[in-house]
Amino acid sequence: MPAIITLLTDFGSRDSYVAEVKGVIASQANPALLIDITHEVPPGDVHAAQYIFARVWPRFPQGTVHVVVVDPGVGTARRAIAAEAAGHFFVAPDNGLLTSLPAEARFVELPVPPGASPTFHARDLFALAAAQIVNGTALTHLGHSITDPVRTPLPVARKDGASWVGEVVYVDRFGTLISNIPGAGVGPAARVRVGDRDVGLVRRTFGEVPSGQLVAFVGSGGMVEVAVRGGSAAEALGIGVRGEVRMDGPTRSS
Amino acid sequence: MPAIITLLTDFGSRDSYVAEVKGVIASQANPALLIDITHEVPPGDVHAAQYIFARVWPRFPQGTVHVVVVDPGVGTARRAIAAEAAGHFFVAPDNGLLTSLPAEARFVELPVPPGASPTFHARDLFALAAAQIVNGTALTHLGHSITDPVRTPLPVARKDGASWVGEVVYVDRFGTLISNIPGAGVGPAARVRVGDRDVGLVRRTFGEVPSGQLVAFVGSGGMVEVAVRGGSAAEALGIGVRGEVRMDGPTRSS
Amino acid sequence: MPAIITLLTDFGSRDSYVAEVKGVIASQANPALLIDITHEVPPGDVHAAQYIFARVWPRFPQGTVHVVVVDPGVGTARRAIAAEAAGHFFVAPDNGLLTSLPAEARFVELPVPPGASPTFHARDLFALAAAQIVNGTALTHLGHSITDPVRTPLPVARKDGASWVGEVVYVDRFGTLISNIPGAGVGPAARVRVGDRDVGLVRRTFGEVPSGQLVAFVGSGGMVEVAVRGGSAAEALGIGVRGEVRMDGPTRSS
Repeated sequence: MPAIITLLTDFGSRDSYVAEVKGVIASQANPALLIDITHEVPPGDVHAAQYIFARVWPRFPQGTVHVVVVDPGVGTARRAIAAEAAGHFFVAPDNGLLTSLPAEARFVELPVPPGASPTFHARDLFALAAAQIVNGTALTHLGHSITDPVRTPLPVARKDGASWVGEVVYVDRFGTLISNIPGAGVGPAARVRVGDRDVGLVRRTFGEVPSGQLVAFVGSGGMVEVAVRGGSAAEALGIGVRGEVRMDGPTRSS
Repeated sequence: MPAIITLLTDFGSRDSYVAEVKGVIASQANPALLIDITHEVPPGDVHAAQYIFARVWPRFPQGTVHVVVVDPGVGTARRAIAAEAAGHFFVAPDNGLLTSLPAEARFVELPVPPGASPTFHARDLFALAAAQIVNGTALTHLGHSITDPVRTPLPVARKDGASWVGEVVYVDRFGTLISNIPGAGVGPAARVRVGDRDVGLVRRTFGEVPSGQLVAFVGSGGMVEVAVRGGSAAEALGIGVRGEVRMDGPTRSS
Repeated sequence: MPAIITLLTDFGSRDSYVAEVKGVIASQANPALLIDITHEVPPGDVHAAQYIFARVWPRFPQGTVHVVVVDPGVGTARRAIAAEAAGHFFVAPDNGLLTSLPAEARFVELPVPPGASPTFHARDLFALAAAQIVNGTALTHLGHSITDPVRTPLPVARKDGASWVGEVVYVDRFGTLISNIPGAGVGPAARVRVGDRDVGLVRRTFGEVPSGQLVAFVGSGGMVEVAVRGGSAAEALGIGVRGEVRMDGPTRSS
């Protein structure tokens, strides 16, 4: 069974960069299936990449090697790391991208290969490390262990009496606002507000409201989301990441 | 020989959604090659997805499993279906996406797995069904047979004396207008009009006119197309899907 | 070990075109891994495609088959070619796309298959030729040898006393200006100018300047680049491909 290697970057899909990384992997690793997570992370947006990655990696089978490179500090003193957790493997700059790994994850610092381009560690460092992992090299042979990887947890919603107070943590291509209020906290008559705008009761799916209408529901990531059916809630409400989302009670404690 | 699974959605390529689907397939299915058709269908545009899919699926080899999810009604009462035709397999919401399957196609309705997210059947229903098909489960074991799948045929051009009257059914990234007038209907001196604009004689290829000029030709899908060489006919003519296209005679009956 | 086939086109990723090509390859070739280089080359921009391709193909392993189709002259008298060099294989229109192949490359002209769409040789000619190569057909069985493929070398920077004078050859998605001044020419106090704007000393990486600041460095392709950290140099400077870039001395002769 060929190994799977996923790739998540902010390189975009119009330049040579992603393909250079894939070429290096294809040249160095045993046969592997390369699966793109996305390369359209806004340039340098570690927060967005971290959110996306947290949703995706647990869906893949054990043995998958994940290459995650959104790296505004490339070539500076920030560390390059590899990790192993839950039977998966990871290579990334040490800037919080791997925050979603469980506490028991093991980490090593990867050395910078001689001659690596200071602006393209994805190709000259991370691709090579991923290939070595695919080829069976143990993590501990790739670098020395570290126990203090950068962890930058996404903000967590809080209970405020019978209400939940949270914020938008991600806006998707449809303009849907994904909050950090847990779906498990939704009570039978919970109402959602975004900023000063009432979105109404929490529904089962956006298909339950007419086209063009605002709607709150528990999204596929398990959190409360706000959408406009057939439109963009981000545009309709003028709200983005960090915008306040409230869910008024009665709610559950999740 | 590993199975091939194609994916066609309107999820875009910047969020986690497509990768979540791929992770589920990679976790559940025997080794398979995942090939993206596109994820850039305009949100909810079943018509565009249907056009693209009709062109693509017959090009793939027998045994291919096609996952087609443009699903504005996700989570409502619309059915989820799987199909088998011409040695290919298909999973999709029952909203007309599979209209291009031949009349002898066999269909089953797929049950919604317990716990499936009401807004993400691609991941929680269609990916699982595709994996089961790849793993050898017979269609009839996936759900009960149905004989009334939704079919929404694309509009067909008509003969009007010596002329053909049709419409634009798709506009591609180049701004080329793809009509439903069959290329087989082109006679030796056929002229094309779009709205009230004369496009001139039908040429062999857009390379036959100078840069910037309007040109009609029989496109790679077998239908009459109108382009601007090195530009956008949609922009130049202010015309989109449903815009009228005429071909004046003498023409052939196709 | 399955063969690798790379694809580089200007077809975009929202229409059926790329998937039609992949379907033909999947139907005709022995099992192969299809890897996209990019399909977002600006329509008809042979220069950009040539630059991207020159960076990418040498990164792939020997035996890779590269399908490169940016083809504004499709259906006209321009030749279709296949090539072999450094253990790699190539199919492309004969318009300069393969200029980066070494001098000892061998070329053949590919015949147009009967019935090929005059506007879609990627599907009806190049995909078939790529499949035949994957299946073991020798280049000389695909067409007759030619010795005069179109070669359109990218412009080369020149020394001007102690300075280098070059130009922008590519602008990437980040708005970074990639020049043709070789990194090997950078001396210890080399300063870069773009048009009439001083960019300052050549740094190791963009991470060495504050956010929002212009910075010159030797990029991952080995050439001098000019960026704005966290922004777009192309926008900040109003400069694109062909804009003048100077590096003032003392420099090295490279």
